[in-house]
Amino acid sequence: MDALKRPRWLPITEPMPPSVPLRVGIAGLGFWGTKLARNIAESPATMLVAICDPQCERLQAAGERHAGAAAFAELSGMLAMDGLDAVVLATPEALHFSQAKAALDAGKHLLVEKPLTLSVAECAALEHGAQMRSLTLMVGHTFLYSAPVRLLRELIAAGELGEVLYCYAQRLNLGAIRNDVSAMWDLAPHDVSILHYVLGREPAMVSAQQYSLIGEAVEDIAMVNMVFPGGAVGHIHVSRLDPRKVRQLVVVGELKMAVYDDLDAEMPLKVYDKGVISAERGTQALLSDTGFARHHFELRSGDVVAPKVAGGEPLRVEIEHFAACVATGERPLTDARSGRAVVAVLEAAQISSEMGGQPTVVASEPGLAAAA
Amino acid sequence: MDALKRPRWLPITEPMPPSVPLRVGIAGLGFWGTKLARNIAESPATMLVAICDPQCERLQAAGERHAGAAAFAELSGMLAMDGLDAVVLATPEALHFSQAKAALDAGKHLLVEKPLTLSVAECAALEHGAQMRSLTLMVGHTFLYSAPVRLLRELIAAGELGEVLYCYAQRLNLGAIRNDVSAMWDLAPHDVSILHYVLGREPAMVSAQQYSLIGEAVEDIAMVNMVFPGGAVGHIHVSRLDPRKVRQLVVVGELKMAVYDDLDAEMPLKVYDKGVISAERGTQALLSDTGFARHHFELRSGDVVAPKVAGGEPLRVEIEHFAACVATGERPLTDARSGRAVVAVLEAAQISSEMGGQPTVVASEPGLAAAA
Amino acid sequence: MDALKRPRWLPITEPMPPSVPLRVGIAGLGFWGTKLARNIAESPATMLVAICDPQCERLQAAGERHAGAAAFAELSGMLAMDGLDAVVLATPEALHFSQAKAALDAGKHLLVEKPLTLSVAECAALEHGAQMRSLTLMVGHTFLYSAPVRLLRELIAAGELGEVLYCYAQRLNLGAIRNDVSAMWDLAPHDVSILHYVLGREPAMVSAQQYSLIGEAVEDIAMVNMVFPGGAVGHIHVSRLDPRKVRQLVVVGELKMAVYDDLDAEMPLKVYDKGVISAERGTQALLSDTGFARHHFELRSGDVVAPKVAGGEPLRVEIEHFAACVATGERPLTDARSGRAVVAVLEAAQISSEMGGQPTVVASEPGLAAAA
Amino acid sequence: MDALKRPRWLPITEPMPPSVPLRVGIAGLGFWGTKLARNIAESPATMLVAICDPQCERLQAAGERHAGAAAFAELSGMLAMDGLDAVVLATPEALHFSQAKAALDAGKHLLVEKPLTLSVAECAALEHGAQMRSLTLMVGHTFLYSAPVRLLRELIAAGELGEVLYCYAQRLNLGAIRNDVSAMWDLAPHDVSILHYVLGREPAMVSAQQYSLIGEAVEDIAMVNMVFPGGAVGHIHVSRLDPRKVRQLVVVGELKMAVYDDLDAEMPLKVYDKGVISAERGTQALLSDTGFARHHFELRSGDVVAPKVAGGEPLRVEIEHFAACVATGERPLTDARSGRAVVAVLEAAQISSEMGGQPTVVASEPGLAAAA
Repeated sequence: MDALKRPRWLPITEPMPPSVPLRVGIAGLGFWGTKLARNIAESPATMLVAICDPQCERLQAAGERHAGAAAFAELSGMLAMDGLDAVVLATPEALHFSQAKAALDAGKHLLVEKPLTLSVAECAALEHGAQMRSLTLMVGHTFLYSAPVRLLRELIAAGELGEVLYCYAQRLNLGAIRNDVSAMWDLAPHDVSILHYVLGREPAMVSAQQYSLIGEAVEDIAMVNMVFPGGAVGHIHVSRLDPRKVRQLVVVGELKMAVYDDLDAEMPLKVYDKGVISAERGTQALLSDTGFARHHFELRSGDVVAPKVAGGEPLRVEIEHFAACVATGERPLTDARSGRAVVAVLEAAQISSEMGGQPTVVASEPGLAAAA
Repeated sequence: MDALKRPRWLPITEPMPPSVPLRVGIAGLGFWGTKLARNIAESPATMLVAICDPQCERLQAAGERHAGAAAFAELSGMLAMDGLDAVVLATPEALHFSQAKAALDAGKHLLVEKPLTLSVAECAALEHGAQMRSLTLMVGHTFLYSAPVRLLRELIAAGELGEVLYCYAQRLNLGAIRNDVSAMWDLAPHDVSILHYVLGREPAMVSAQQYSLIGEAVEDIAMVNMVFPGGAVGHIHVSRLDPRKVRQLVVVGELKMAVYDDLDAEMPLKVYDKGVISAERGTQALLSDTGFARHHFELRSGDVVAPKVAGGEPLRVEIEHFAACVATGERPLTDARSGRAVVAVLEAAQISSEMGGQPTVVASEPGLAAAA
Repeated sequence: MDALKRPRWLPITEPMPPSVPLRVGIAGLGFWGTKLARNIAESPATMLVAICDPQCERLQAAGERHAGAAAFAELSGMLAMDGLDAVVLATPEALHFSQAKAALDAGKHLLVEKPLTLSVAECAALEHGAQMRSLTLMVGHTFLYSAPVRLLRELIAAGELGEVLYCYAQRLNLGAIRNDVSAMWDLAPHDVSILHYVLGREPAMVSAQQYSLIGEAVEDIAMVNMVFPGGAVGHIHVSRLDPRKVRQLVVVGELKMAVYDDLDAEMPLKVYDKGVISAERGTQALLSDTGFARHHFELRSGDVVAPKVAGGEPLRVEIEHFAACVATGERPLTDARSGRAVVAVLEAAQISSEMGGQPTVVASEPGLAAAA
Repeated sequence: MDALKRPRWLPITEPMPPSVPLRVGIAGLGFWGTKLARNIAESPATMLVAICDPQCERLQAAGERHAGAAAFAELSGMLAMDGLDAVVLATPEALHFSQAKAALDAGKHLLVEKPLTLSVAECAALEHGAQMRSLTLMVGHTFLYSAPVRLLRELIAAGELGEVLYCYAQRLNLGAIRNDVSAMWDLAPHDVSILHYVLGREPAMVSAQQYSLIGEAVEDIAMVNMVFPGGAVGHIHVSRLDPRKVRQLVVVGELKMAVYDDLDAEMPLKVYDKGVISAERGTQALLSDTGFARHHFELRSGDVVAPKVAGGEPLRVEIEHFAACVATGERPLTDARSGRAVVAVLEAAQISSEMGGQPTVVASEPGLAAAA
């Protein structure tokens, strides 16, 4: 068996704890915000100085866990406090834009949960705002800080899989039924950001279908098809109505194939030395006629390798990357540009789905999305 | 835990071995034809009297296994022999129509592998031909003779899952790369026939995407979306380029959800007592505001039951059902009508995929398929 | 399918938060002690008032997380402090007895990690000491507070499995290599306590083998066989040298069988409606001679049910049960008596293993263990 | 990742079909005999010329499948027929010795199903008888002809795992309850023969426990412990009373660990680059005191590799190896000597189990087994 080509770790700014920890306030203390708050409090790179949520019980519960943090029911209050360097927004998607704008206007560095906003135009406006004020603006595409995803990108970049032909992702579960945001806008940002990252490319065309099965307000299921420059095909299937929890990404390359299963603690990433040899490409003599049908291809199947995956809790890595970028002024791995690229795909998918699944051009510059 | 509602077995003609076994000739001795031949030879209901394949080595190998069967290189030879009651076609899809027509013209009962033909018009012509001659015409939708699929239909019919909202099927593997038939036409007939059967309905609208990744001739991957009368949504994903073998169907009902995994020997069918209770439908008091977002739904999660699944080898059950239908004149479970319905979906999917995924009306009457 | 007989939840003292939370000090801030400390701090029923560890860095790290707790390098210091109601010991096994004795002598209620001590005699002495002073003495058999184990006990108690014939447990992993305590004394207390609890019985005879493969000091692997009154057989396999993490218990009853897999998040408990019908017991006509061998038994195989399992984090439930028992004076589910019963089995197993695996009587009264 | 050291395939006599196929008669047409008969009939190296079973229906059913074979109710009749070169015995274990003796006396080459006989003395007698007459005597330890087992032996022989410290096998299922042979004598021959083969050693000492849970006649469950020269430890757990089918072997080496799961079609063999580095052996600086306990070991965890496993149906390989050995006079891989070694372990295990699990010396020379 040939060893995997495994290049050195892709560079992200090393989480060197700055001499003075970043003083962070968090808005939104739901499930995810609570996890963020804990990581901010525990990291030596950050200090949790303020918490904010309009809901009394949440604010009180968080206050008990984080006795040293000032508590605010209103974001404006938190933004006005002294000694606040940065804001983390874990609030509903629809509020991201206005709240992010307010935070930047107040001169705060900003980490916004995914998706950055609900439109490319809004993303571009925030991006511009942060640039003008020389503030760090980062989006919480957490999976790009998880070890299996980073290793998968490395393997692809090193040519281990050959040219990627096709990949599909499934993010399914019964849970988190919401009537303010569709499954696509809620869940697919993860998969779109992962695909952008591991492929190192963004799709040119998208088509999508969304279905609302249990309520009128928003869709619970989405299927998104993507075509990347060069011809690779991507498929994303998200659902909030599934009996099993599924978190998978399959990548089919010309040389090898990979399966990333985020729920497999033992072997989250598997590389299959499997493929098809096309006789038409000259790598193999033409197979003889096997009866009624002619086969011009030959299957190849070798070892399966589950490379060792090591790394810290993604959320902690993310938080410390944010602090390091603020300290050094470096551009985050998941900067506003990458957040905008994800929203561009979702925006095109939304248009496609409203037009019955028509292929739609992805326009990551504001105002350019259009049916093909 | 409430017991599953499990009604009596759905009626198929009981495989009573007729006093005189059906004398069968088979054309096409590839992988599947070889399995069919073995079942025909071993069942007391049938007798394998002839084998046919243009390829010498195949014919010879089968001849050694089935010494009593007459061997033919040409179908016309087999059709002309004495003492042949019925023909089984396991030949390439493109030959189905002309060979089936010839067999019917020769007065033979006929079992054709899936898909019945490559167009609704051809299906209709064969159907009409068989009817005129009072011959049994059956299509080999094998999974409808497998125990887990039959039990799944029973459970749905008995209301165990409630109204079906959504289902998706995956049929993935690395293998059987062919350049004469696409993955969709090769693999999806299984899933379409299963969905028709377990839902008891056929879709009204279809959209599809197909991708050819390793050769020019035919597509290796297809995603098919279906909308059923009443609003249920179906999704089929087939691929000949996948590192793992997957054979799954997930059915999401209003009351419960089911997973059929054909590769799980221990628990091929699992019924999850899981669902969503919509407050808007009045079954549940409106949940209070939980912060930024309003939730009008509540998740419900109970036992998982893997009902005992028992039954013979599907191919054997299929063969004996064919013999019994010939003997009694009864209409087969997988008659020409059901074969045509499957082809109608694939025909619409083919049109949709050629038009970039546009939703297309399923027209199971000849000549009616059209983009919506 | 018949529904599972599922009786009401077995009574443990309801974790009613007392009006005044229990003031707890913890000694031992390793992996497990850190988790205990977090639960004590977060529960409204308890207050973490003191932390103790001879190791500087550990004490300092815990001190940062628990700013309000007094820090001590020595247990004696903590025991002498004002305002301490109870002590939790998560220290090395060899220190349990002397530290527990000191804590009881200081008049503190006490929760000791498993095993309670390293001998039946020591257990009895502590038990007596607590009784004299009317102090609560509880042992941390955590799994008895986990939902799948509790449900398994209920099902067995309700007769769902019939008479239990046989059960085996595996607790395997690569990890936690220690040279101060063998795998048996470290890991098997979990399985022994679980078996005592779910079967409602303690074994009469034990035999065991232990092996030290990578060092001289202590054994890394143990196999323990147990015979229960009435004839049921138990087998425990623990290892610190295994490529995979395994946490399983299989219970074979006369009517049904159960598998408890602590690592299966979806279906931690499965009940198989499987069994053997013995013709000799008259439930079934004698099967006829089937060739060379006579079979007097018939296999029965029905549905598999994974009942819904719900419950809080076991450690949190345990801590709140402790606080409730202190408040009410009730006897804990995992009282000193149950801790002694577990040690009695291990003591007998230790003797057996030192005598080459000879069956040894379990003596839960001090001084009675002896080779049979 | 380092590539696996994978040496060339271990030599077994190449199954070169002899010019004249071996004429074989089979006695015993139960489940396994039927599979053997099919393989004998289908292989070009052998010809099925006779079938034998005292049970009418079995004989008749086999006769229909194998029209060319002469049918006998009595072994003596088959042995007396003309044109019979070799005999395969798939009869009950208790008959092996007398039937094998009769076949050798009749001058037939012989393949006997496992276990060869029920005592070392009988094995030795048969071995001697075959040698005197220059007949091939082989035992059906089928798993030694399966690809994952052969690859596992290769990897161990090549030093890939380092020195083997410990291994355990599980062979569990609900099924095949018999009252003529215990689970140990029925199932454990597989695991003992596999361990002998992959380790290249036979154990010096054995201890065992057997339990009869559902009937009086024979035991349904056995646990066998083995100590190999050099100190490696083996453990075998067999049961006919288990809710799940399990066929596993775990091998823990000093450098790596392997898991062989015969039911995992995708990855039957996995090699874990995991281990423990003992500081006392000087490969690693002593770890510092980590609190209360001192750790002198360090865990190491790397990639998992599932090497490609390829090979024919084991039974077919076995049959053709038998034919080749008869043709060339070579000693079979699973010769009488290896069959005797397996019986020697079972004989010692039987003695141990009858003496309450006392460690017992394995004596592969007749008459030497004795409690230590």
